[in-house]
This record gives sequence, C-alpha cells and structure tokens, in this order.
Amino acid sequence: MIYRAINFQQKLGLFAEQWAPKVIAEMNDYQFKVVKLKGDFIWHDHKDTDETFIVIEGDLRIDFRDGAVNIAAGEMFVVPKGVEHKPYAEDEVKLLLIEPRGVLNTGHEGGDRTAENDAWI
Amino acid sequence: MIYRAINFQQKLGLFAEQWAPKVIAEMNDYQFKVVKLKGDFIWHDHKDTDETFIVIEGDLRIDFRDGAVNIAAGEMFVVPKGVEHKPYAEDEVKLLLIEPRGVLNTGHEGGDRTAENDAWI
Repeated sequence: MIYRAINFQQKLGLFAEQWAPKVIAEMNDYQFKVVKLKGDFIWHDHKDTDETFIVIEGDLRIDFRDGAVNIAAGEMFVVPKGVEHKPYAEDEVKLLLIEPRGVLNTGHEGGDRTAENDAWI
Repeated sequence: MIYRAINFQQKLGLFAEQWAPKVIAEMNDYQFKVVKLKGDFIWHDHKDTDETFIVIEGDLRIDFRDGAVNIAAGEMFVVPKGVEHKPYAEDEVKLLLIEPRGVLNTGHEGGDRTAENDAWI
C-alpha cells in the first residue's frame, strides 16, 4: 500500500480565506492546522494550553503585552498557555498551527473574528 | 522584551550526529526534536502515542509492514500509535519530530540504536 504524505503548500493552495485555520492532520488529541494571515488580529490567550506557530512562508510577528517575537519561514515559536498575544502580518503569511483539538482561534474572547473550529481540508 | 523564534536550520547546524534527536522546544507535554537520518533504522512502534514527522530538507521514506510513505521537504506524516515502522533515507534527511516527552526513538525495542532521550540543543 502507498501511503501519502501531507504537503503544506498543496493544502494551502486549496483556499484563499485568511484567519480561517484548516485542519490537515491529527496526532493523538492534537491538531495540525494551516492558516493564512494578513493584518492584525485581536488580543487573546488560551488558558489551558500552549500554542505552536511554525511559519511556512512569509513573516509573522506576535505581539505580547511585554514585547514581541518575529517568526520567519523555517522558524517556530511556542506561545505559553495564559499569555496574551496578538498575531500580526504586514504581508500575507502562511502558517502551521499545532494545538489540542477544540482550541478556538480567539481563545475565550469570542466575537466576529472567531473562525469555524475543526474545519478540515 | 524581544523574544526569539527557533530556527530549524540554525539548530540543525549545531550537530552532525545522525539518529540522535535533539529537543528544541516543548508544547505542554509534547516535544519538538530535530534529527538527521541516513540509511536504515530498526523496526519499532510506539504503543502509547502517534508520532509526527515533518521533513525540513531531503527525502524520507517510512516503511510499514503493508507499504510505505515518501515524505519530501515541506511535507508531514503522522505514524499512528502501535503501527510498526522503519525510517529510511538514501541521503541524509533533516527532520522535525513531534511526540510526547519521554518517547524513545526505538520505542520499546531497546538496543544500540536507542538514542539519549530528552537531549536539548
């Protein structure tokens, strides 16, 4: 039997929508999601879990209340649980997110920036 | 405060040893490990957990008892828990592994291919 690997760029080519994470794989109770971001997001945190950002293409900045981190393609950063953060991208950035199943993109903030959860592609 | 992202190639440049995973980050009780592989490994499985392979550079093949998967740079594959597998790389391949803290590279097989666990770089 031939098993197929999951190609990040192929998955990212299937949609244009920004700020809408798409699940591409699961490991135990964690999900891998690709997402396209441009511009500013809202301040939020995730009370119960760390959240991993891996940049596939472009440049991401994540602002914290006490600073910021710049993440380029081929780099990763883990935002610790409970730490308020706000992603920002001047130009569109393509990311891989890793976090437990059920985590909302806006944490517990809600509002119109909250994306559909568990949307597979 | 300026936080620093983790650069995969920078971390991979810090060691030459093959088949020796190095931890570069943690998310909750999961670890991210970079590793260089070339040649054949042993058959093994992980009874309690899935294991994620993301190829950073090169080509990896993972053999299963009933087939195989080829994983190129920019691709990922999740080996389900309990599934016997054997990584193989004709030329050196550079990987990111994601799995729970405490998982040994040889599963429960032991032997001289078992690498030091929880080795940070």
